[in-house]
Amino acid sequence: MDAQDPELDRQLNTARAAARGLRKTPDDVRARALVSMAEAMEAARDELIAVNAGDLERARSLPPALVDRLALSPARVAQMAEGLREVARLGDPLAEAVPARPVPGVPRMVRRRVPLGVIAVIFEARPNVAAEIAALGIRSGNALLLRPGREALASVQAIVRALTHGLERAGVDPGAIQVVEDPDRRRFAALLSARGRIDLLVPRGGQALIDEVARNARVPVVETGVGNCHVFLHAAADPELAERITVNSKLFRPAVCNAAETLLVDAAVAQSLLPRVGRALAQGGAQLRACPRALPVLLASGIDARPAVESDWAEEFLAPIMAVRVVDGLEEALEHIERYGTRHSEAIVTTDPEAAQAFVDGVDAAAVYVNAPTSFTDGGKFGLGAEVGISTQKLHARGPMGLESLTTWQWVGHGRGEVRS
Amino acid sequence: MDAQDPELDRQLNTARAAARGLRKTPDDVRARALVSMAEAMEAARDELIAVNAGDLERARSLPPALVDRLALSPARVAQMAEGLREVARLGDPLAEAVPARPVPGVPRMVRRRVPLGVIAVIFEARPNVAAEIAALGIRSGNALLLRPGREALASVQAIVRALTHGLERAGVDPGAIQVVEDPDRRRFAALLSARGRIDLLVPRGGQALIDEVARNARVPVVETGVGNCHVFLHAAADPELAERITVNSKLFRPAVCNAAETLLVDAAVAQSLLPRVGRALAQGGAQLRACPRALPVLLASGIDARPAVESDWAEEFLAPIMAVRVVDGLEEALEHIERYGTRHSEAIVTTDPEAAQAFVDGVDAAAVYVNAPTSFTDGGKFGLGAEVGISTQKLHARGPMGLESLTTWQWVGHGRGEVRS
Repeated sequence: MDAQDPELDRQLNTARAAARGLRKTPDDVRARALVSMAEAMEAARDELIAVNAGDLERARSLPPALVDRLALSPARVAQMAEGLREVARLGDPLAEAVPARPVPGVPRMVRRRVPLGVIAVIFEARPNVAAEIAALGIRSGNALLLRPGREALASVQAIVRALTHGLERAGVDPGAIQVVEDPDRRRFAALLSARGRIDLLVPRGGQALIDEVARNARVPVVETGVGNCHVFLHAAADPELAERITVNSKLFRPAVCNAAETLLVDAAVAQSLLPRVGRALAQGGAQLRACPRALPVLLASGIDARPAVESDWAEEFLAPIMAVRVVDGLEEALEHIERYGTRHSEAIVTTDPEAAQAFVDGVDAAAVYVNAPTSFTDGGKFGLGAEVGISTQKLHARGPMGLESLTTWQWVGHGRGEVRS
Repeated sequence: MDAQDPELDRQLNTARAAARGLRKTPDDVRARALVSMAEAMEAARDELIAVNAGDLERARSLPPALVDRLALSPARVAQMAEGLREVARLGDPLAEAVPARPVPGVPRMVRRRVPLGVIAVIFEARPNVAAEIAALGIRSGNALLLRPGREALASVQAIVRALTHGLERAGVDPGAIQVVEDPDRRRFAALLSARGRIDLLVPRGGQALIDEVARNARVPVVETGVGNCHVFLHAAADPELAERITVNSKLFRPAVCNAAETLLVDAAVAQSLLPRVGRALAQGGAQLRACPRALPVLLASGIDARPAVESDWAEEFLAPIMAVRVVDGLEEALEHIERYGTRHSEAIVTTDPEAAQAFVDGVDAAAVYVNAPTSFTDGGKFGLGAEVGISTQKLHARGPMGLESLTTWQWVGHGRGEVRS
């Protein structure tokens, strides 16, 4: 890579040097740096909005949803600053040290948390991701390489300028946060193959981005964000909760990964619950795609629905569309989820504690809810302060990735000349 | 895969079903299963040794070191049984549950440990690996697919027969431990690509095996075992400790990954320490490959040594060979380790606590030792009871992989109808 892209090579070296320094930086300095970054963001508010106006101008022809994600307002800048302060208030993620079980004749061993080192985040149009990642990354002692989508580049550069001013004022190496410019996507590929120089790469964005990273990365990756989530209305579901939880799971924010895509209803209560829940979904703007057992129940109640096809069970709609299926009890619901789910978030509505426990034990997902909606899967709601993303894998990090997900362990042994024999 | 290999497909389904059952199995049943497996191993001792004799007969033309790894003796069978009992005595790896910071209006959230699910281990000639993996895998509630090298197949099948008798007697699904037969290495490739059906694949063996798995796996993998480890003799090293720790790091078991490959000596003490340490290494049977500054010191003391070449600094010799280099102080030692090390185990010998701390903070490795040899990196010595392997990666598991490395987390939220707004 050195010869082909000296600028990226320099950035990787700068990040490594910054990581080495951060590793030795005490907690109070890291926490103070976040407060200082928040102040610098607030001071730069008008400049950030002016630079963002340029990005928005260039993005005029793009889809409105993307333009909305790209926009910075005084309120969003204030949110970014508050996010930094909130993570500053969390405990030191590097404070944990676990003594090993003492073994006779063996040095005293301690397992202590240390930063991962250099973390690269590839994201898309939302510039505020830069502040969120910076908060978690610096608090946990890591150096960051941020590679935003082209449309957000100028905004992210302005944000990172403010953040690095904050770092400098707190006495932290400003090389700890860098923006990787990538006009022709060559550095995207270079980051994916920078083995030994990047300790974690997180893709944060749509399915296409994540798939591309997962297929091509030769550096360690945590996959985030694909959510084909379900709500199961058990035979002993409370009707009011069934309605409220289904509607919130589907419609709170249909375009994000924690939204439910399929409603499973126990056959024993399909006649009584489906009309009520289906009507509430339709009134909230959802289109329903129903299995052959659910369809007549919905249509007989005057609720618009069309027949579901096989691919509907597997699709993450990311839109106000919900597939509906009648199942014969809890076991069939678990089988459906095992087959089609993406191990993200699953919910059961029931007043029966045994059924609830069987669901929790039977579902293999990052988050499982009893009488609560899937929309709660979110780093803030889990008390993590913010999130790097939502991991759908089992290794290293699962569910919303907070500070801990950006750390690893190191074993330290202090001996007095003991040796193995 | 289904159509091409119905037998492997059936084994993967059997493993998944067993994993589902094990997930709900209480701790006392899992612990009792290990004791029952130990008893079954002891009862089958003579049969195991007889079957192993067949493997040894077929392996007559193979290298003696491999034949030694393959051999089972009454003592090795007793060791396997004792290993199972030791892991049975460890605490429940699934007992941990961490309540999240409460957030107003949000369901009560708890993060609890759960098994990974289905774990595949690809190993080579050592049949006792089967018992060690079985102990850790079952204790942590996972189902196992063991794919041994061809030369150990009959021995591993006999061991697993005994282990599954033990499982059955404890009331655990015997489908939780299966041997994957793979005469033509087709199933090796099939396991590597069984995405969604294997939750963790661990290659346990030589560099070639690990590289092949890392390059081709589409299932989650933890890489184990490559150790280019260093001993650094600091300017304030105690001479007796310097000798003892270097010799033990290199020669305790030169063929395993925790053996040190390079000795770094501070220039300030090269004249005083190198003759003593070099002589002890040579007397222990080590060949020395020295840098231009170390070579004349060694030769002048009558110690046999040859000039080191660049590739010597990067090589894991796995043999009684040690590279020797004189460095100008701690920083140059850290740079050498950063450049050539494999992030496994590193040691410093010093009486200066500040230098020790700077080394510990400056070295990016799974294990760092102060006045103790690298040969201590071993699951048993770390109080883990046994080990799946030694992870050289930072994500998920680092260093010796014990029970915890075979678990993941699940967030469980219990609500009363709260929704997001």
